[in-house]
Amino acid sequence: MAAPKKLGQQTVMFQNPPVIAATATIVGPKEGQGPLAHTFDKVVEDPYYAEKCWEKAERRMLEEVMQTVIKKAVLAPANIDYLLAGDLLNQIISAGFTARSLGIPFIGLYGACATMYEGLALGAILIDGGFADYVVVGASSHYSTAERQYRFPTEQGVQRPPTAQWTVTGAGAALLARTGAGPVVTHATIGKVLDLGQGDPNDFGSAMAPAAADTIVRHLQDTARGPQDFDLFLTGDLGIYGKGLADQLVRERGFDIGNKFADCGTMIYDHQKQDTHAGGSGCACAAVVTCGYLMQQMLTGKIKRVLGVATGALLSPLTTKQGETIPVIAHAVAIEMR
Amino acid sequence: MAAPKKLGQQTVMFQNPPVIAATATIVGPKEGQGPLAHTFDKVVEDPYYAEKCWEKAERRMLEEVMQTVIKKAVLAPANIDYLLAGDLLNQIISAGFTARSLGIPFIGLYGACATMYEGLALGAILIDGGFADYVVVGASSHYSTAERQYRFPTEQGVQRPPTAQWTVTGAGAALLARTGAGPVVTHATIGKVLDLGQGDPNDFGSAMAPAAADTIVRHLQDTARGPQDFDLFLTGDLGIYGKGLADQLVRERGFDIGNKFADCGTMIYDHQKQDTHAGGSGCACAAVVTCGYLMQQMLTGKIKRVLGVATGALLSPLTTKQGETIPVIAHAVAIEMR
Repeated sequence: MAAPKKLGQQTVMFQNPPVIAATATIVGPKEGQGPLAHTFDKVVEDPYYAEKCWEKAERRMLEEVMQTVIKKAVLAPANIDYLLAGDLLNQIISAGFTARSLGIPFIGLYGACATMYEGLALGAILIDGGFADYVVVGASSHYSTAERQYRFPTEQGVQRPPTAQWTVTGAGAALLARTGAGPVVTHATIGKVLDLGQGDPNDFGSAMAPAAADTIVRHLQDTARGPQDFDLFLTGDLGIYGKGLADQLVRERGFDIGNKFADCGTMIYDHQKQDTHAGGSGCACAAVVTCGYLMQQMLTGKIKRVLGVATGALLSPLTTKQGETIPVIAHAVAIEMR
Repeated sequence: MAAPKKLGQQTVMFQNPPVIAATATIVGPKEGQGPLAHTFDKVVEDPYYAEKCWEKAERRMLEEVMQTVIKKAVLAPANIDYLLAGDLLNQIISAGFTARSLGIPFIGLYGACATMYEGLALGAILIDGGFADYVVVGASSHYSTAERQYRFPTEQGVQRPPTAQWTVTGAGAALLARTGAGPVVTHATIGKVLDLGQGDPNDFGSAMAPAAADTIVRHLQDTARGPQDFDLFLTGDLGIYGKGLADQLVRERGFDIGNKFADCGTMIYDHQKQDTHAGGSGCACAAVVTCGYLMQQMLTGKIKRVLGVATGALLSPLTTKQGETIPVIAHAVAIEMR
């Protein structure tokens, strides 16, 4: 029998921490004008990416980062044991169609904007458990595919409230390996679904903050670590309002992460100049900032240990119309350079 | 380092096969009039299940089977390490809202009608890998939620072609445990996404048949086993046309499973009397027949070893409108009584 690897209630510790052997990112034009532009592999100026529709553009981006990350690791799709992916579109079509073109055994995930971290956690579990040597994990989103599915056709020009976030156009992928050089995934904390009764689909950040706070606190308690053990706590897409709230909620539970707390959603755009309101969101937000910016920071030694925490709002347009509030989740993965 | 557990290209073998310690099922009125009615825990006569809408009825069914399966195993939600679930609705709302009410760390899955088997495979991986002691896996679907999301409002009374299948109303759940009595999961084969160019969303069975055949053949090749080693090959929801096609495709690749081949979709209804055309479909089809009928057959010694194979069509209504054909996948899990 394998030795139990659980720590506390919700965290697993990897005995042979899987390596993030390579990452790849691609973003759209707006992200290419933002402050993290230099951390992405490729900026696409055309939101259609030469495809007939935005959905096909999003899919092309996800396919491309998958192919790129496999090439960067000097491997071929046939070497990869599992492809773990998901996105925001109904029936996760970006991921499903990408899996069709790559021909890698596919595990489809849905964790809304937490999907990349759900995948990193499961990918590390597959490798550390002895079930895989190589796993590719990825997620994508696209401003225009998300707007028309979740809110309004962009052509309609509906005014956005200040708490609204801007869905990141792009895709990120990471290749996890049993051995090799690079940052390693040491722990994963799978979140519980919470719901504090927030029902405003124009303020996801505030809705998701309690989930982020809960998973961060749970991780610290399960691993008997504190803020001093990390260089950075990086959340996925809380945005300005959600980040402030999460900071406060973590503090109320006895941990002060304030001066080490960053949020991908507040970093990816210059929200004053770029009119992105509360910040970035979408599956690609955590995916591209983790696979781009964060990996650069780790590989250049600027950040040694990070707790990455991506949050997801598990609602649908239908549940909102049916009067439901917003269930939220956050998954965390601890990554370190050794 | 954990010993590699991969067999061949796509199969993993469990060193300490996880036990299916309990299962629970609930179905709607039509399934309650079908030939497998006696194998389900509960038949609900009201398709609304006393809720205001069909989506809430589906969710209530999924919540109830989760609670039932945990009670049957004499456990509480706090004992369960992970909840793995998914469904057909956009943003897998049945699963997400169920996870909210249960408070168990949640891994959201999307594998269309293959979701139950994606979950069984991952659940067994989590336990055999040493990451969990107890995992609950479940899936749901509802005729009326699926019809109005994927096809037409049922009120419209659109005529269905003979190849159309009938989405099963119900939910099934299985509790996997590290130790205990019951059938064990010995192997899992995660499928690749195939697409043979079938684009008719009214004939999913034929579209999915190649995926079922590929995963069955891959499992037999990876494990160096043949049809003689199994009592049953049970597919999820190929229906009449898809089952015939899968049988033929497996035969063309050198294996004759014909006299041991059953399909949940052809079993759950009396398709002559119940006007269900090509048979049942939906996430709940494989889930309730596996957790109901199959478990009964295994626990009473009538079936000793089965290869369960659930197929999923990874399209969306949008991809069909955008001219795409249907990508399909099949995941297999080998279960045996010891």
